[in-house]
Amino acid sequence: MPAVTFELHKTDTRTKARRGTVTTPHGKIETPIFMPVGTAATVKAMRPEEVKELGAQIILSNTYHLYLRPGHEIVREAGGVHKFMNWDLPVLTDSGGFQVFSLGKMRKISEEGVKFQSHIDGSRHMISPEKSMEIQHALGSDIMMAFDECAPWPAERKYVEQSLELTTRWLKRCKAEHDRYAESLGGESQILGEGCNQSLFGIMQGGTYPDLRKRSAEQVVEMDLPGYSIGGLSVGEPKELMYEVMDECVDWLPKDKPRYLMGVGSPDCLFEGVERGIDMFDCVLPTRIARHGMAMTSHGRVNIKNKQYERDFTPLDPECDCYTCRNYSKAYLRHLFKCDEILSAMLMTNHNLHFLVKTMERIRQAIDEDRFPEYKREFYDKYGRF
Amino acid sequence: MPAVTFELHKTDTRTKARRGTVTTPHGKIETPIFMPVGTAATVKAMRPEEVKELGAQIILSNTYHLYLRPGHEIVREAGGVHKFMNWDLPVLTDSGGFQVFSLGKMRKISEEGVKFQSHIDGSRHMISPEKSMEIQHALGSDIMMAFDECAPWPAERKYVEQSLELTTRWLKRCKAEHDRYAESLGGESQILGEGCNQSLFGIMQGGTYPDLRKRSAEQVVEMDLPGYSIGGLSVGEPKELMYEVMDECVDWLPKDKPRYLMGVGSPDCLFEGVERGIDMFDCVLPTRIARHGMAMTSHGRVNIKNKQYERDFTPLDPECDCYTCRNYSKAYLRHLFKCDEILSAMLMTNHNLHFLVKTMERIRQAIDEDRFPEYKREFYDKYGRF
Repeated sequence: MPAVTFELHKTDTRTKARRGTVTTPHGKIETPIFMPVGTAATVKAMRPEEVKELGAQIILSNTYHLYLRPGHEIVREAGGVHKFMNWDLPVLTDSGGFQVFSLGKMRKISEEGVKFQSHIDGSRHMISPEKSMEIQHALGSDIMMAFDECAPWPAERKYVEQSLELTTRWLKRCKAEHDRYAESLGGESQILGEGCNQSLFGIMQGGTYPDLRKRSAEQVVEMDLPGYSIGGLSVGEPKELMYEVMDECVDWLPKDKPRYLMGVGSPDCLFEGVERGIDMFDCVLPTRIARHGMAMTSHGRVNIKNKQYERDFTPLDPECDCYTCRNYSKAYLRHLFKCDEILSAMLMTNHNLHFLVKTMERIRQAIDEDRFPEYKREFYDKYGRF
Repeated sequence: MPAVTFELHKTDTRTKARRGTVTTPHGKIETPIFMPVGTAATVKAMRPEEVKELGAQIILSNTYHLYLRPGHEIVREAGGVHKFMNWDLPVLTDSGGFQVFSLGKMRKISEEGVKFQSHIDGSRHMISPEKSMEIQHALGSDIMMAFDECAPWPAERKYVEQSLELTTRWLKRCKAEHDRYAESLGGESQILGEGCNQSLFGIMQGGTYPDLRKRSAEQVVEMDLPGYSIGGLSVGEPKELMYEVMDECVDWLPKDKPRYLMGVGSPDCLFEGVERGIDMFDCVLPTRIARHGMAMTSHGRVNIKNKQYERDFTPLDPECDCYTCRNYSKAYLRHLFKCDEILSAMLMTNHNLHFLVKTMERIRQAIDEDRFPEYKREFYDKYGRF
């Protein structure tokens, strides 16, 4: 039995939206779920207890970043990423694939892996499927992502085809490496501390070419992994195209495994993803825009920099019961932002994460109560333009 | 009866150290006390609840900064600085005097007050004693400081003499302005919400000239205010000289009023100040050095940037029970600092404030138990070089 399992509770009668539970050694995750991003083993501007309090059940951390700083061996010596960062709920780590490809001219892809230069000091490194596994094993995340090549958009069909085939070959190497490691520990286990407490998810690619997506899905699903991710979306293509691809992809993935859409976190994308049968999402969007003074609220985005909030002593979102909205006014939040105060990032981040986490909670409840399409319409009507 | 009163409980038999309670409309303050600084109506990188939890009983906020941003009228409309920033314990505001004098060439002093240019946008402003009172009344702080001229060190005797006389004339104008304001509200009151809930403290100057200090003290004490501050110290003079001046100053201040030493916050200065009969201290030091990766611990300063902490999985201070030391290792704190993560400032600030606040708590206990000199020696032995 893999260290991560999935139980599907219900599928919506009118859409592909579904309710499930992912069980990991560090606890259960109710899906659909939004996972806050803690790139460098910290959800920026948040104490881990605060992330937990607002209802987050799992966070994502980054292989690429932790490999470079502080170095995965240090995290291993610390007892893994959970202990290192004081977070005892599940952690998912990406493979480093997306980050190294984003380096542009500073990386070179070969069959073996990717050679790249650090964005920090220009030092030279190589991440291969085996190396990515080694790093993620050191980090000790509950869910490890396979090392993939994420093709850009737009991309020639030929390139996307070669890229997906490479991704499959790399996935096989990831799995072989992980199996070797898990066996050395006595196999995967769902009980924390006994055997290997980590599981590998596969990533399908194929760009925006339906037949290539299908081929990638088939190859990846054949590996019989505990979860699958749709990669290579939200890389610049129009949203409508992303939804179209997603729509098809989901049908080629097994119903009894969690489906993870990488790097997507605007409210509309979450709703559209859920409607198409996605179970897991992650994105830096809520935390990043928070640090730039932008709030997600039930009535749409609020740019706290705006002069109109100078004397607005009401909360960011009158319908929100987060710590920020319970205790501070827009006028104060604007003041903090204008003064470049750290508390600005702390309070805005808290609000945005709370907003997305609670929205996903309401989505789950709506699916449970057979009114997901109604809740979606309600949300869209109030939120306005995305 | 003024809105702020002082009760002296005990004076040490071997030193001038003393234990007292300052009562303000927002609660009691046990002295000697260290007051964390919240310049722009936020103790940098801290939620107000966290400041409270670590035991802080009062914070300081800045007239100059809040006048420029967001503007004191906005804080007034928000219901005062307490409500604006979500802090329901006492607040002391400085007068803006020290800040405008620090502007160097960007300010001009006259009998009327100080004309200056904003450090933010170069805009032109004027703060007079009356204006300083007006701003502090708008902020609604429990303790307001008189608008003074803080002479630099070293300074010619003639300059210091003129400066202290100007400070006294300004203090009279501050008091007249405050009395007018308080009368318009029905006088000062210790009960929050009835009458004027604010009190004015006077500041003595006189540089390092004993006779000028004495003259300033006499003039200031004649005003019969609820508290007095020793200003113009810790402005570059050697510590020994500062202690010498302090030693004399204290004897010219009444025993039944709190004595406040402005801008001092290194552990040795706190001990030396307490030993000389000072009751209140404030300083940006613990919060500022925290953001630069420097911790105050029971065994001296720790520079978290140091390579030696890369694999040090022990807490910052093994004798500390603050949130940071209970949950994080030096290796993690070093990692956060190297990555320029906001959590670094949050955790380091929490620790440093906790350290100073708890040290003052122990100082109070030591005075209560007649062992202040012993505790001081103990602390110095462990802390090492300051």
